[in-house]
Amino acid sequence: MDWSQVFATRMGRMKASEIRELLKLLDQPDIISFAGGIPDPALFPADAFARAFADAMRPGEAGVALQYSVSEGYKPLREWIAARMAGLGVPCGVDNILITSGSQQALDYLGKLMLSPGDTALVTSPTYLGALGAFNAYEPRYARLDPMRNAEPAALAAEAADAGSAIKFAYLSADFANPTGETLSRAGREALLDRAAALDIAVIEDAAYQELRYDGTPVPPILALDVARSGGIENTRTIYCGSFSKTLAPGLRVGWVCAAREVIGRLVLMKQAADLHSATLNQIATNHVARAEFDAHVARIKAVYAGRRDRMLAALSREMPAGVEFTRPEGGMFVWLTLDPAIDAAELLARAVRDERVAFVPGGAFFADGSGRNTLRLSFSCASDAQIDEGIARLGRLLRQS
Amino acid sequence: MDWSQVFATRMGRMKASEIRELLKLLDQPDIISFAGGIPDPALFPADAFARAFADAMRPGEAGVALQYSVSEGYKPLREWIAARMAGLGVPCGVDNILITSGSQQALDYLGKLMLSPGDTALVTSPTYLGALGAFNAYEPRYARLDPMRNAEPAALAAEAADAGSAIKFAYLSADFANPTGETLSRAGREALLDRAAALDIAVIEDAAYQELRYDGTPVPPILALDVARSGGIENTRTIYCGSFSKTLAPGLRVGWVCAAREVIGRLVLMKQAADLHSATLNQIATNHVARAEFDAHVARIKAVYAGRRDRMLAALSREMPAGVEFTRPEGGMFVWLTLDPAIDAAELLARAVRDERVAFVPGGAFFADGSGRNTLRLSFSCASDAQIDEGIARLGRLLRQS
Repeated sequence: MDWSQVFATRMGRMKASEIRELLKLLDQPDIISFAGGIPDPALFPADAFARAFADAMRPGEAGVALQYSVSEGYKPLREWIAARMAGLGVPCGVDNILITSGSQQALDYLGKLMLSPGDTALVTSPTYLGALGAFNAYEPRYARLDPMRNAEPAALAAEAADAGSAIKFAYLSADFANPTGETLSRAGREALLDRAAALDIAVIEDAAYQELRYDGTPVPPILALDVARSGGIENTRTIYCGSFSKTLAPGLRVGWVCAAREVIGRLVLMKQAADLHSATLNQIATNHVARAEFDAHVARIKAVYAGRRDRMLAALSREMPAGVEFTRPEGGMFVWLTLDPAIDAAELLARAVRDERVAFVPGGAFFADGSGRNTLRLSFSCASDAQIDEGIARLGRLLRQS
Repeated sequence: MDWSQVFATRMGRMKASEIRELLKLLDQPDIISFAGGIPDPALFPADAFARAFADAMRPGEAGVALQYSVSEGYKPLREWIAARMAGLGVPCGVDNILITSGSQQALDYLGKLMLSPGDTALVTSPTYLGALGAFNAYEPRYARLDPMRNAEPAALAAEAADAGSAIKFAYLSADFANPTGETLSRAGREALLDRAAALDIAVIEDAAYQELRYDGTPVPPILALDVARSGGIENTRTIYCGSFSKTLAPGLRVGWVCAAREVIGRLVLMKQAADLHSATLNQIATNHVARAEFDAHVARIKAVYAGRRDRMLAALSREMPAGVEFTRPEGGMFVWLTLDPAIDAAELLARAVRDERVAFVPGGAFFADGSGRNTLRLSFSCASDAQIDEGIARLGRLLRQS
């Protein structure tokens, strides 16, 4: 069987993730790895989930928890999310909420909803690698979104038209973005909405890290600013992707989309056709834990992550040679380094693992246009103080030799 | 915001499911409904799952169960499945198994893997409605697959070529198919493989009901026949989609694909981009329950479902007027009725609900070509003996008046 002749054209765009292949190599005890981007499992609300599962599996309840359920998602959880969105400045109802299997699935569905082959997606540079992976399946072209520099909408539209393409959406993570850790200012968000309105395109707001603010002043979600200017969620163009992966636990795969009903209705049809619904029990348990202790739990983990961020920034200030720039994130899990333009971070990683037993993610994979080879991402989410001090010292030694 | 101008062309193919909209109307206590196609929740192995969840959430284990995991799926579960596939005549390794979020997700991924817009999928007529829903997102054309009649491969290929299309795969459920309940004979399976070889296309074997055989002689899976003729799984063209939804419980969304590594490798990339992985805890718990009591549990539920099938077939023999034909399935959950060609089953349903308070699924939605309006599907999986006797009597009364 020659499989290549039955594969769809999209498969040419679906490559093995550089990060994933790398991570497989780093599971060695003497390597200090800042490469992962996962929450610390020691911080999961395991007791609360254990109680929630036991509660959902009681006689008389288990038949519901183990049975098929509706594609929209478990209504009490959607109600809790709708109330939380209202608290973020987004008054909405349950019909504005779809439960997805993590926000990664939301990105896949939104690519599927809007992208025909050759359509244009606007993405920041760098952007979340997993968003490019999800969108690539729908064979788009990418153009660069730079919310802080006022590229003219007319120029963007003309460039797309020259390529025989239509711009469908702008995608970005506005708070403590993966990979840079940076947050878009309120002015930047307003400018983005202006530009999206001029182009009449959608905005996908990836809010995966939004709850993890450690200091600084919270900026309203783009969707909240959109509601404020448009008069209500049904008039908005912003599609908000939320997740419990970074606040409660990622392994249950529970996230959500909040948007106008016209969008949610289409996504419900898509979900029904693609996997029927997210796992029933996981939604019931997440609802239970969220209602019992979401705020208290998030406050606890923020205190821990904030301490690790501080430790890493202090170590970087101490250890990095001149010419290395790094971001100072107000939340999230990542610090982003920009090295001398002559340094290739992928080559640096090979040396880092071989000579210094320290690991990070080279930044190039986060750029849709192949640039950014002199950048790298560090995660502080799972590192102890001692690992941070020693690992950043190792990285500094390596960079001073480069 | 005019959403229609940012939606992808595929959205024109994604319509609300007739069945789903219908089911919403049937949740009334005095209606006897044979419309659902879901397992009886009273038969779920709830105690075993409760123990499995408690075990997975023990201190020291919970951090794994709640954390991200690999896209391929939980290895012990893949090992159990590989051993089970070997027992079905498909010797294979864990690298031939991908865990999916139910077999519905497998159908979505297989459409995504092989279908570019305009490609041809061969489907039986009728076929599983959810397969058409999953494939429609990739904008195929359909051609009719009739395994028992030897349509010449050359004619099928010529017809596709005339439409500017390439045939990519044949999809079918070979055992106790949804909606007909029918099983394809061994000769039919061999003929299908001959035809697929002549066309050099893939075969998607939907095995969702395969474990639920109540009597008759088991027929080897198409994949097993393919292995036998091709010398090993790496040489096969058949992609097997399995599910725990009909044997253990559907709400956890755990299914699998078994195929050559070249296919599984591509699907792993796709899953990573689309939702990272199926929920970790659900896979751990399913592995626990499958190893503890899969065979014993399946034997128990088969005894119950077989009794309901017998009761429904006896009632149909008693109550149906002349001219109504029905299948006599050896397993699964469905009986398929073919009415007088002048009767429209969708109109009949409206009268059935209004006048007799009995419900079924009109068969038209299961046909890709819009035919089959005089057919309907009955499910016996959740009905008591009394409901079956009374419901089929009501249906008989209605048909005698038609």
